[in-house]
Amino acid sequence: MSKRIAGPEIERLIQLLAKVPGLGPRSARRAALHLIKKKEALLIPLGSAMQDAAEKVRVCSTCGNVDTADPCMICTDPRRERSTLIVVEDVSDLWALERAGSMNVRYHVLGGRLSPLDGIGPDDLNIASLVGRVAEGEIKEVILAVNATVEGQTTAHYITDQLAGFDVRITRLAHGVPVGGELDYLDEGTLAAALRARTSL
Amino acid sequence: MSKRIAGPEIERLIQLLAKVPGLGPRSARRAALHLIKKKEALLIPLGSAMQDAAEKVRVCSTCGNVDTADPCMICTDPRRERSTLIVVEDVSDLWALERAGSMNVRYHVLGGRLSPLDGIGPDDLNIASLVGRVAEGEIKEVILAVNATVEGQTTAHYITDQLAGFDVRITRLAHGVPVGGELDYLDEGTLAAALRARTSL
Repeated sequence: MSKRIAGPEIERLIQLLAKVPGLGPRSARRAALHLIKKKEALLIPLGSAMQDAAEKVRVCSTCGNVDTADPCMICTDPRRERSTLIVVEDVSDLWALERAGSMNVRYHVLGGRLSPLDGIGPDDLNIASLVGRVAEGEIKEVILAVNATVEGQTTAHYITDQLAGFDVRITRLAHGVPVGGELDYLDEGTLAAALRARTSL
Repeated sequence: MSKRIAGPEIERLIQLLAKVPGLGPRSARRAALHLIKKKEALLIPLGSAMQDAAEKVRVCSTCGNVDTADPCMICTDPRRERSTLIVVEDVSDLWALERAGSMNVRYHVLGGRLSPLDGIGPDDLNIASLVGRVAEGEIKEVILAVNATVEGQTTAHYITDQLAGFDVRITRLAHGVPVGGELDYLDEGTLAAALRARTSL
């Protein structure tokens, strides 16, 4: 706000809310008002949930996931198959794959992708720890579930090189038409890939 | 998430974030991850800002604004002209008018609009306290800055009736073309109102 119209506590709340992804300056004001109106139902519980999370959430030292336990729930889950590892760029990708829920395996979070322009090299990602996990010998397949972007593919190639000396199968996600997607809206690259990888009915 | 993939603290944070206006279930997950990653810079400060606001913010017993002081900063501001009062539906409208910053006066927040279908009658709004403020005799003009909706206009008419016995000028906001707006995108009602209220150059 250009003009101070409320106490500093409210303005600070608005300023911090505006930094939350998905909220801008305008929606931060709307959110702050809503929170203040729903003090008992939302503002107080959300404030304490944030404090709770800040105190208890940590990064899993094995896979890079975030959880309140280290190693995380996924790494210690005895029902997960241990011979396959899915490599993702970010925790959000791990969550997305878990929502899909089609494979009951463990993960390795790189914490980003190789991006020389942004100064992100191999040492900035959790690649050494990935090589270390593979070197233990239990893992037989590494699925590179990185984004289908130039940087994601560069990262995939780099990891493939690093794992060349190990007896491990390295795979990547299939390219193709999204389920429910309409051909008319797809780019040519995806359509060409979907045609090349066509399957028999 | 259909499947539990993280500790209850993280899931609780996501569930509460999803109730913030402007965030849905998907963006709440993204926001939670971002907050966890920016623990020192955002999660902890935002959590304590929320606790601070919950403890200190109250509703102004004079005008219905939210502030850490009661009466609020606007009601107690000695530089504000006291003979004009702007009536708004909600605190967000008060903030919007303050951002416009064109009038240095005080406000009265109704806390909603008359809406028989939703069961909101005159007793659910701060109308009695508005009449009480006008009855004190200091106020010479009441600007009804309610929304230009059917319910807003109904509310304006009701308030006009309630204030009929007092020596006070009652006005409303002008209708017209928004500044920077293109005629092509405006509805007929606004265009007709803008034509009727045309001014000389």
